[in-house]
Amino acid sequence: MPYVNIKITREGATQAQKAELIAGVTDLLVRVLDKNPATTFVVIDEVAMEDWGVGGVPVEQYRKRLKART
Amino acid sequence: MPYVNIKITREGATQAQKAELIAGVTDLLVRVLDKNPATTFVVIDEVAMEDWGVGGVPVEQYRKRLKART
Amino acid sequence: MPYVNIKITREGATQAQKAELIAGVTDLLVRVLDKNPATTFVVIDEVAMEDWGVGGVPVEQYRKRLKART
Amino acid sequence: MPYVNIKITREGATQAQKAELIAGVTDLLVRVLDKNPATTFVVIDEVAMEDWGVGGVPVEQYRKRLKART
Amino acid sequence: MPYVNIKITREGATQAQKAELIAGVTDLLVRVLDKNPATTFVVIDEVAMEDWGVGGVPVEQYRKRLKART
Amino acid sequence: MPYVNIKITREGATQAQKAELIAGVTDLLVRVLDKNPATTFVVIDEVAMEDWGVGGVPVEQYRKRLKART
Repeated sequence: MPYVNIKITREGATQAQKAELIAGVTDLLVRVLDKNPATTFVVIDEVAMEDWGVGGVPVEQYRKRLKART
Repeated sequence: MPYVNIKITREGATQAQKAELIAGVTDLLVRVLDKNPATTFVVIDEVAMEDWGVGGVPVEQYRKRLKART
Repeated sequence: MPYVNIKITREGATQAQKAELIAGVTDLLVRVLDKNPATTFVVIDEVAMEDWGVGGVPVEQYRKRLKART
Repeated sequence: MPYVNIKITREGATQAQKAELIAGVTDLLVRVLDKNPATTFVVIDEVAMEDWGVGGVPVEQYRKRLKART
Repeated sequence: MPYVNIKITREGATQAQKAELIAGVTDLLVRVLDKNPATTFVVIDEVAMEDWGVGGVPVEQYRKRLKART
Repeated sequence: MPYVNIKITREGATQAQKAELIAGVTDLLVRVLDKNPATTFVVIDEVAMEDWGVGGVPVEQYRKRLKART
């Protein structure tokens, strides 16, 4: 009975894409660990850009910095 | 000093129901483990239906499927 | 289909006490929100004392400090 | 930059199986949402059987109950 | 490659304050554990007041109770 | 009343280093958001190397790959 939590930045993931993530993760757990899909939960959290930091700065600033380097 | 996180699908839980969950979980931890309520945190997350998967599909689809079987 | 995570400091909670927490939280969700117990997950995490901080210090030190005050 | 947390009961998942979960989830996020694997984290938690509840009882008891029904 | 999740009550934290939290936590992990900032994630969750409980009641009620005592 | 969860790979962080993380995060929340340290929780999780993935592989393999490139 696995529980999977997927956190992504909020950037317009569609319902279809979320359904694909749910199906894909569940299939993976069935295939690799023979888990029962009926007791496999997947919870997706979309996190606002300003609430996600990497490299010590909010993610938007981080991406600009990466771009500026190239 | 327990920390409890309750995740439920967003389906109209009222403030009163949430307060009941907070009171009930705290009482349980006091009764079973003699915890101090003043340092017991309860955080409730309401998750959009499209963000919760079970059985490899979003929860709404899962419920329809269950109904169709009966 | 709720998911509940309970974090407590590791201080010898017994299997019976854990079973009581699982039963109690599940009953609460059934009673307050009419949730289905078959799709209610409860996961308990016991956290080592040195890994839990409150008041800016590890929990053991925090308790000594509180005692010293009284 | 997704963060994925997979919680499973501790029942002898091997290093190879864990590596397969890590690869599979990362591939899924690349394929569905075009995420960068270099900033995709996957954290696996193995949870002791007595710490996981479903149907209001610890998971082992839950499985016995299911078997007894069939 | 640390992952840090900060949960606070939703009470108007500004983008600048969030950026300060992200910078501060990342610096701390670099300084104390020599972690690489490029693989340090910080995710901030703002939790509605009615969804956070302490002392067995929602946080707003808890604060009123504390004030009434003094 | 913030709750902070810090996940790091298990690589020998000492009690003193953990205490420094607890103190540092708490100070940060006091300074930036004027939070009360007495109701600020910090929970540290050390995650086994084989349970942490990045770039689609377990962290140890990821580091070897990075080294091989330079």
